[in-house]
Amino acid sequence: MFNKINLNLKNNSYQIIVGNGSIDELQGFLHSKNYSKIIVITDNIVHKIHGDKIRFLIPNLDFVIVENGEKAKSFATLEDVCEQILQKNIDRKTLLIAFGGGVIGDLTGFCASILLRGLDFVQIPTTLLAMVDSSVGGKTAINSKNGKNLIGSFYQPKLVICDIDFLDTLPVREFKAGYAEVVKYGFICDANFFDFLDKNLADIFAKNSQILCQIISRSCEIKSQIVGRDEKENGERALLNFGHTFGHIFEAEVAYSSEILHGEAVAIGMVMASQLSLNMNLIKQGTFTKIFNHLQRCGFELNIKNIRSNWSLENLINHLFKDKKTEKNQLTFILLETLGKAKIVKQIPLENISVVLKKFLD
Amino acid sequence: MFNKINLNLKNNSYQIIVGNGSIDELQGFLHSKNYSKIIVITDNIVHKIHGDKIRFLIPNLDFVIVENGEKAKSFATLEDVCEQILQKNIDRKTLLIAFGGGVIGDLTGFCASILLRGLDFVQIPTTLLAMVDSSVGGKTAINSKNGKNLIGSFYQPKLVICDIDFLDTLPVREFKAGYAEVVKYGFICDANFFDFLDKNLADIFAKNSQILCQIISRSCEIKSQIVGRDEKENGERALLNFGHTFGHIFEAEVAYSSEILHGEAVAIGMVMASQLSLNMNLIKQGTFTKIFNHLQRCGFELNIKNIRSNWSLENLINHLFKDKKTEKNQLTFILLETLGKAKIVKQIPLENISVVLKKFLD
Repeated sequence: MFNKINLNLKNNSYQIIVGNGSIDELQGFLHSKNYSKIIVITDNIVHKIHGDKIRFLIPNLDFVIVENGEKAKSFATLEDVCEQILQKNIDRKTLLIAFGGGVIGDLTGFCASILLRGLDFVQIPTTLLAMVDSSVGGKTAINSKNGKNLIGSFYQPKLVICDIDFLDTLPVREFKAGYAEVVKYGFICDANFFDFLDKNLADIFAKNSQILCQIISRSCEIKSQIVGRDEKENGERALLNFGHTFGHIFEAEVAYSSEILHGEAVAIGMVMASQLSLNMNLIKQGTFTKIFNHLQRCGFELNIKNIRSNWSLENLINHLFKDKKTEKNQLTFILLETLGKAKIVKQIPLENISVVLKKFLD
Repeated sequence: MFNKINLNLKNNSYQIIVGNGSIDELQGFLHSKNYSKIIVITDNIVHKIHGDKIRFLIPNLDFVIVENGEKAKSFATLEDVCEQILQKNIDRKTLLIAFGGGVIGDLTGFCASILLRGLDFVQIPTTLLAMVDSSVGGKTAINSKNGKNLIGSFYQPKLVICDIDFLDTLPVREFKAGYAEVVKYGFICDANFFDFLDKNLADIFAKNSQILCQIISRSCEIKSQIVGRDEKENGERALLNFGHTFGHIFEAEVAYSSEILHGEAVAIGMVMASQLSLNMNLIKQGTFTKIFNHLQRCGFELNIKNIRSNWSLENLINHLFKDKKTEKNQLTFILLETLGKAKIVKQIPLENISVVLKKFLD
């Protein structure tokens, strides 16, 4: 049996189906609908490794294949993919399927939101990061020359299928990066979940499929509840950005290259946000240490000088002010009150941020 | 005093303000809000003629100026405008103002819908077509190589200001083209309005400002009521496409060049849709004649052989099947039951369409 999680959003509600072999559920979904055409958007690597799984499941699929990597989240690829899809004589009953990692999900969701002013789409994530984060909640985007994810939409899929079998072939570095988003849910709103993760860390990294199913389901459940209450990020949804504001400035500084993966940046960012929480007397030293130790046990490189010895504080601060969440130069961060409870803190003096960055740069 | 029309859409409701000098109302709107930055998107011609009107009204405006013409509704211009806007260090409290005709409104609305996943925007249309049609109702779009308006979103403005003073400088051909959308409202749902237009045609084309204010207000009112009931065009909103499906195929055949303006194509399309209504025994000969005569009195070229002598029926039919409203090759048209009442008619045999086209081609 598969775990089924509901994301409740009135007319835009949908299910997230988690389990080994849950891709088979796609057939039932398609039988209940009446799509005129189904187009799978994927990248060359996922297509090579997993393309047959979906091809054998559903007859008469069309494919649009993009180059693997963050560069696919560009205007050029967006235009190319949109035109390729339109070339196939689609109508408003055409379904798009995002089949791949976060890049494919973000790009496909954005295409779906703007083609004929909105087509249905389904997310079939093939990475841990996409399963527990980007495929759920309807944030779609491409990158701008001026920053990451600055162009996009809120647009919900009709179904998300997290088939754990796809994780078998996921490189360990990517698996670990995805795990950063899993433990984030523990940090921001579920101390028991954190304890569970902390106890079962070895099994998780050994890809024990029962444990994976449990932690992916719980991650999707937490995200669904938050998004269900605040789809457009007017409030609570911002808690999901814990570690992301600090993380983004390092991703920006390495120009979103594989020098630091998104999840790795989030791990570093969560340590820094915890340090800031500690400095502002929100959490105790013991809580910081628990967080730090857990992320270190995962094998994240938390000493950023081991990544680059010469970070520029000025550059990092500049990236901070380009973040789309920064309003009128007011610095807002997600901080912890305790392990398992995060809050939005506004108007933080820049000095406080600099102190944290300097501590890790020196 | 200005006419104020409400478009009611729950959280996305807004006002349309119609009158001579109604642009002054922008100040009150801005005082009631707290925007961090205001960016006006316009084209080189509108900027040259009317730029100072808005510049003197609001201090500290930023401008993004695109080339006048339909080509601005391209991926290339979309990218360019988005990047120029992002370069200005915007945040989520930035307001965009669409200042121009339908092209500027469609492009700016689409930019607003995708920048930082959604910025507020205001429509200040400067053409009759934009005042009575494209600036109201939240359809935004750019064109694809595969067809017009195939890429876009439903995204409502926060305010629409129809300042009739802008029409003073509008070329007569564009004024007339815009009028096609005005009389459309009479044809599809208000016989009294049609009678009023028919009686006052000379005053309208003499740009009598009191009459213009009346007919623009009534047009916006009708569109607002329909959009308020069916924002995403799942039903009734399709009635607004009367004349558009036939019209589009001629626009497509002249490659959306100024050989036929949109409103001119709609006028031809309304005649053809009326002919189809007549052929299918929905309306009487007298009704067709009334419609035909009115459009002819406006000065529309309704004999398409005078535009081009060698139209290809095959090409025209091909364009029909590329229309984004065509589902699974089922032909749906908006037809008239009587003057002042339109309905959606599905599954019309292609033969019926060909008969109408041939009548006008031979």
